[in-house]
Amino acid sequence: MVEETNVEQSKKAAKKEAAKAAKAAKKAEHKAASGKDENQNQQETSAEDVSVGKYGPFGMIQSRVKLDERKFVKVTELVNFVKSKGSVWVRGRVHTSRAKGKQCFLVLRQHCSTVQCLLSVNDKVSKQMVKFTGNINKESIIDINADVVAVANKIESCTEQTLELSINEIYVISEAKAQLPLQIEDAARPELSGDADSLNIRVNQDTRLDNRILDLRTPANQAIFRLEAGVCKLFRDILTQNGFTEIHTPKIISAASEGGANVFTVSYFKDSAYLAQSPQLYKQMAIAADFDKVFTVGAVFRAEDSNTHRHLTEFVGLDLEMSFKYHYHEVLHTIADTFTNIFKGLRDNYAREIEAVGNQYRVEAFKFLEPPLILEFHQGVEMLRGAGIEMDDEEDLSTPNEKLLGRLVKAKYDTDFYILDKFPLAVRPFYTMPDPNNSKYSNSYDIFMRGEEIMSGAQRIHDPEYLIERAKHHNIDIEKIAAYIEAFRFGCPPHAGGGIGLERVVMLYLGLDNIRKTSMFPRDPKRLTP
Amino acid sequence: MVEETNVEQSKKAAKKEAAKAAKAAKKAEHKAASGKDENQNQQETSAEDVSVGKYGPFGMIQSRVKLDERKFVKVTELVNFVKSKGSVWVRGRVHTSRAKGKQCFLVLRQHCSTVQCLLSVNDKVSKQMVKFTGNINKESIIDINADVVAVANKIESCTEQTLELSINEIYVISEAKAQLPLQIEDAARPELSGDADSLNIRVNQDTRLDNRILDLRTPANQAIFRLEAGVCKLFRDILTQNGFTEIHTPKIISAASEGGANVFTVSYFKDSAYLAQSPQLYKQMAIAADFDKVFTVGAVFRAEDSNTHRHLTEFVGLDLEMSFKYHYHEVLHTIADTFTNIFKGLRDNYAREIEAVGNQYRVEAFKFLEPPLILEFHQGVEMLRGAGIEMDDEEDLSTPNEKLLGRLVKAKYDTDFYILDKFPLAVRPFYTMPDPNNSKYSNSYDIFMRGEEIMSGAQRIHDPEYLIERAKHHNIDIEKIAAYIEAFRFGCPPHAGGGIGLERVVMLYLGLDNIRKTSMFPRDPKRLTP
Repeated sequence: MVEETNVEQSKKAAKKEAAKAAKAAKKAEHKAASGKDENQNQQETSAEDVSVGKYGPFGMIQSRVKLDERKFVKVTELVNFVKSKGSVWVRGRVHTSRAKGKQCFLVLRQHCSTVQCLLSVNDKVSKQMVKFTGNINKESIIDINADVVAVANKIESCTEQTLELSINEIYVISEAKAQLPLQIEDAARPELSGDADSLNIRVNQDTRLDNRILDLRTPANQAIFRLEAGVCKLFRDILTQNGFTEIHTPKIISAASEGGANVFTVSYFKDSAYLAQSPQLYKQMAIAADFDKVFTVGAVFRAEDSNTHRHLTEFVGLDLEMSFKYHYHEVLHTIADTFTNIFKGLRDNYAREIEAVGNQYRVEAFKFLEPPLILEFHQGVEMLRGAGIEMDDEEDLSTPNEKLLGRLVKAKYDTDFYILDKFPLAVRPFYTMPDPNNSKYSNSYDIFMRGEEIMSGAQRIHDPEYLIERAKHHNIDIEKIAAYIEAFRFGCPPHAGGGIGLERVVMLYLGLDNIRKTSMFPRDPKRLTP
Repeated sequence: MVEETNVEQSKKAAKKEAAKAAKAAKKAEHKAASGKDENQNQQETSAEDVSVGKYGPFGMIQSRVKLDERKFVKVTELVNFVKSKGSVWVRGRVHTSRAKGKQCFLVLRQHCSTVQCLLSVNDKVSKQMVKFTGNINKESIIDINADVVAVANKIESCTEQTLELSINEIYVISEAKAQLPLQIEDAARPELSGDADSLNIRVNQDTRLDNRILDLRTPANQAIFRLEAGVCKLFRDILTQNGFTEIHTPKIISAASEGGANVFTVSYFKDSAYLAQSPQLYKQMAIAADFDKVFTVGAVFRAEDSNTHRHLTEFVGLDLEMSFKYHYHEVLHTIADTFTNIFKGLRDNYAREIEAVGNQYRVEAFKFLEPPLILEFHQGVEMLRGAGIEMDDEEDLSTPNEKLLGRLVKAKYDTDFYILDKFPLAVRPFYTMPDPNNSKYSNSYDIFMRGEEIMSGAQRIHDPEYLIERAKHHNIDIEKIAAYIEAFRFGCPPHAGGGIGLERVVMLYLGLDNIRKTSMFPRDPKRLTP
C-alpha cells in the first residue's frame, strides 16, 4: 500500500516532469554531453528548416525524463508493424549511412539484425535533416521514429529484407568517434577460403581482441556468447533437474593442488597463496559432506606458458562430482546424458545463433549419437593400430593420435562426440581408482568433441588407506597431501566426476579454430587486456 | 544403433559379472579396502552365526559389480513403503548406534532426515550381527536392507516419526574413524539463548571450519547451502527470463580497478597482475558491445584486512548491468522485481530448508513488500533525524545509522528489504551519474536487507567527455583510467547496474550472525583452509 502510493507519486511526478522537460531535455542534455551547442546549431539552420525539433543530438541521457509513452520495437519484430498505421520507435546503431543528393540511406543494426532506413527531402523533411543523418558516425546509437514500409524488391544487404523504415525523427543518443580501429563490416565478413580478396579485409585476431568492444558487435560474436550462455544454462538446468546442488569453491587456496607446477602465486596479506587449478578437492569434500551430487561453474587458472589455439590461462570450468551406489558407470551415464541434452538443447533453442556463426565461419554441423558412443581405451588403440599407428597398450594418446582417433570414430560411427572409458592406470593421477578386473586399466574416462579432449574424469579413490598406497606408488610425499587424505577419514561414499572448459566446448561445438573466439575477454600468457 | 548394441553388450556383461561376482565381491572388495580379513572374521563366528553373509564390511567399492536390481529408497520417501510387502534398500550414515543386550537401535541419517532402525536377535538375526551393528563407528556409511514398519508411538528423536526400519541386512560401505573431531549432534544442537547448558556443548566456529566436512553434515548446513544454490538459480532464471545474457568476466586483470587499495597481487609469468575486485568494467564493456542486459556470477576478491562478521576476502558476486532507454529507474525497477521474485521463490520452494535452519538458529521470518519499498536518501536522513541523529544532507550513512535506519524502516513499513535511491553525489565514485535535477545528489542507490547494505548500484556515466570531467573533479589521474574511458568512445547506451554478495544475502535472508556460516569454504585474512 505504502509502496503503491510511492510508485504512484513517482509516476505522477515523472509525467509532470516529462511534460515540462521533454523539449528542454534535448537542448539541455546534449549540451552537457556533446559539447556542441544545439541552440547555435539550430540558429544556423532554423530559418528555412521544416524539420526543426525532429532530429539532432539527443544529449547525454542523464535520466531527466522517463518518456514511457515511447514504445520501442525490436528490429526482428518490425515485420509485425508493416500494416500498422502508427509509427514505431527503434533504437540501434548506425551500421552505415550515406546521403546522396536529396536522399539518405541508413542501415540500422541491432545485435544480429539490420534494417534499411530511408530519408528523402520533402515538405516535412528538410535537406538539413538529410545532411545531418548522412553525417552520423558509424556505430553511433540512434533513436528513430519511423513508419514501417513493405518493399517490392528484397533488400539483400539487410537481415530484414521485406521492409524498410521511413524515418520521421532521428536523434543521436551516443556518438561514436569518427575513426574506428576496425570496421564491423570487415570483422563480420565471411571467412571464405580460396577467396584471395578476403585476405585483404580480414581483421587479425590481436586487432579484434585489442578492440574487443567493437569486435563483439559482429553478428557471429553476438551469437557465440549468447550460445555460450546457453551451454551454461543447459548444463546447470539439466544437472539441477537430476538432483545436483550447485556449490561454490574457493579460488584462493593455501597449497598448490598438483604439486606446484603451472600454478599462479598470490600475495595473501603477509603470506603466499595460490589460484586453484581445479575445484576437484572441494567437490570431493562436498561429496564427503553429504551433498551427493554437486556441480560448480567458475574460474579455473592454469599458469601454463602455452600459446596454442586451445589454451587459456583463465577459463570457465563446468565441473561436477557425484556419489554412486556400486559402479562409476552410474556417473558416466549421467555425464553422457548431460551432454546429449546440452546438444539437443543447443540444436533446438539456439539454431539462429548457430546459423549466425555459420554465416561467418565455415561450420560443419556438430553430430552426436543418442545415447553417446562409449568405447573402451583398448578399442581406441585397436582402431589406431588398424590405421597403422604403433603404440603400447598402456601408452597415453598423443595429440596427433587423439585427433586421428577422432577422425576414425567419425568415419566409422558418424559422431563428433564420444567417450573413451578405461584408460591405462599408468597415465592417470594417483587418486584414480584402478580397474578391479584388470590392474593395467583404471575406472577413468576422457570425452572428446571433434577429436579433441574436453573432459578428463574418473572414479576417485574414496578410501584413505588405499589412497596412501597409491600415492606412495606414485612417489608422492604423503605429508603434502595429508589434508586431501584426511577428507576421506570420516566416511565417504564412492564417487566420480569430471570437468569441462566452457570455452573449449563452445569452440569445438561450433567448429571454431581458436579458443580466443569463445572467451569474451581471453587471458593467455601474452594477453591480460582488455 | 551402434551405441545400443554397445549398451546392450555392456548390460549383458554386467549381469553376467554381477551373478558371478555378487557374492565374491563382498569378500574380495572389503579385503582390499578395510585391511580386515572377512574370511577370518567369518571363520571366527560362522559356527553358530545364522546371519552369515547378511552383514559385515562391504569392502571398498571399486565398481566391480553394478547391482542394478537393488532399488534404493530415500529416507523421506520411506513413508510410502510402510504397507509394502517387500523390503527396501537404504544408504545413509550411522548417526548413532547402541546395542543393548539382544537389541540394537541405530539411527540412520540422510541429509536432514533421520530414521530409527532396529535389530533384535531372533531365528534369523544372530547376536554377532547385533554386536557388529552396535559397534559401527558413527558417521560410517552403511547400506541396509530392511522392512518398513509403522510404529504406534511417535519417535520424537527422529525426523521420520511414524515408522522404523527392521534391518534384514547391513553392510558398512565406508567406515569413519572412531574418534571424530566434533560430534554432529553437538554441531547441530539448537542455539537457545539463556540455556546455560547449551554453552557447554556448542562447537565453536573455528572447530567447525577446521572440520568443515563434518560440520557441513548438520541439517542446518545441508539446508543453508541448498538454499544458497536456490538463490543463485532464482537470480539467473529470473534475469534470463527478462532477456539478460550471462557473461563471464576475467578475474586476473592488468590494472587494479579501484586505484590499487585492497587488491590481491598475482605473479603472472614475468609480470604482476591483480585479482578483480568487481566485474564492473567488464559488464560495462559488454553493454558497450551490444549485449544490452547482462549478468555474471563469479568469484570476487577483496584484500581487506577486515575480520568482521560480514567480510570475506573471496566471495561469490551476483552482478548485473542493463542498458536502458531514458531513465535508470527502468533498471532499478528490474532489480527490485528480481529481489521480489527471489524472495517469493525462496518462500515457495525452500520452506523446508528455511525451517531446518530455523530449528538450529533463531530466525525471524524475512519480511518483504511487493513491490519493494523505495525511499529517497533525503527521506532516510529525515527518518534518522526524527530519531535524534544529527547528520548533514550529504553525509554517507555510517554503519550504526544504516542499522538504525533499518530498524526505523522495519517499524514503520514492516519490511526487512528496502531500496534507498538518490545518494549524495559526494559519497559515490567518479563514474556515478549526477542527478540532473539536483547537483547535490546522484542517480545511485543502495539496497538493504535487515538493515545491512547488500547492493550498491548506480547509473554509470556513459559519455567519455563527461567521465573525464567527473574524474578530474575527483582528482583521478586520467592516464590511469584511459582504458576505462576508451570503452565509451564507440557509442554506448545509457546503463545502470549493481552487484550483490551471495553469502551476505543468504546470511541476512536467514538472519544468521556470521558470513562464514554461508560460505562453504570461507576465506578471510586468517583463514585459507580447508
